[in-house]
Amino acid sequence: MFRKKFYVTSQREGDIIDLTSHIKKIVAESKVKDGLIHLFVQHSTAALTTIEFEPGVLSDLKRALAVIAPENADYAHNSRWGDGNGRSHVKAAIVGPSITVPLEGGNLACGTWQQIVLLELDVNAGRERTVLCTVIGE
Amino acid sequence: MFRKKFYVTSQREGDIIDLTSHIKKIVAESKVKDGLIHLFVQHSTAALTTIEFEPGVLSDLKRALAVIAPENADYAHNSRWGDGNGRSHVKAAIVGPSITVPLEGGNLACGTWQQIVLLELDVNAGRERTVLCTVIGE
Amino acid sequence: MFRKKFYVTSQREGDIIDLTSHIKKIVAESKVKDGLIHLFVQHSTAALTTIEFEPGVLSDLKRALAVIAPENADYAHNSRWGDGNGRSHVKAAIVGPSITVPLEGGNLACGTWQQIVLLELDVNAGRERTVLCTVIGE
Repeated sequence: MFRKKFYVTSQREGDIIDLTSHIKKIVAESKVKDGLIHLFVQHSTAALTTIEFEPGVLSDLKRALAVIAPENADYAHNSRWGDGNGRSHVKAAIVGPSITVPLEGGNLACGTWQQIVLLELDVNAGRERTVLCTVIGE
Repeated sequence: MFRKKFYVTSQREGDIIDLTSHIKKIVAESKVKDGLIHLFVQHSTAALTTIEFEPGVLSDLKRALAVIAPENADYAHNSRWGDGNGRSHVKAAIVGPSITVPLEGGNLACGTWQQIVLLELDVNAGRERTVLCTVIGE
Repeated sequence: MFRKKFYVTSQREGDIIDLTSHIKKIVAESKVKDGLIHLFVQHSTAALTTIEFEPGVLSDLKRALAVIAPENADYAHNSRWGDGNGRSHVKAAIVGPSITVPLEGGNLACGTWQQIVLLELDVNAGRERTVLCTVIGE
């Protein structure tokens, strides 16, 4: 088992950050050829998934998440805590904080149009986000 | 590998149950310090995710899931089987039945505001739910 | 660790394919009795989850996903690339490409009404989809 963290900094709500280069570096360092890499974002207003990293589809995803948790709804979280990120928590809980991806011959076994991304869902910009990686295999 | 089940009982549809104390006990029992814990809920009308365990945001999540699967829609599942939980199945399939969380030094490596929860999505109240835990690591 | 791929071919957008028989064969071949099976679909317009494999609830799930990403919305992805599957990418990113399921005594430890399925979300019909399986355990 190989364990390492990396950090990415978002600029604004809705940022979608391609994690591929960070992850490839960690996979290489782990020396694992065939196995799995588990990724976990240690925050309740960010999420991990895969998507084609293309500006059009990234903006489509933002709009889709806003259907579930619109900007202008009344959030009980906001009323209680006044921090304005009720919608961020909701989206993060539905997409989820973790993903596990297979490794084959030392490479991420994703599809051609399938990149691993972090969704910055918080209304507060410029946050550093921690992604904890665990590599298992041979 | 260490394997153990635990059980939680919900009171009503929409209950969100903090699993932290159950999971911490199992992690301690496993004696694994650094690794992963995989959690799986063995039901098609419940789901697992992470969220800030705070009543405001929990009610916001319920409302968001009701956007995808509203209470008063016509469900083909209900017409066929008459059990009224079409919306429960739909929400559970979208959120998903499993989550994997890293362990560091014998602790859950979650963020400060990030708790592991079970979503009770079934319309039938008072159900015992089984969560199957698998701990791997050193 | 045991690794194997299998392939399924969808007929049309919205197809939901029960993967149970494919997975059972791979679990048997792996000779692992107690552990985990990780499944990953190597495409950005398909997804994996669990659901009761019953026609009513499957059509309910399709309708719920169309709430998030409706057929007749304007997709930036479509405007840019003209391939018409903006909604497919969005749904796939929200449901997610992977799932991990426990094995007990050589069997999938799912609930009675809980089947593992692939969601074909692309608008282009008749695609072969690759599912990469990794079995770990004893």
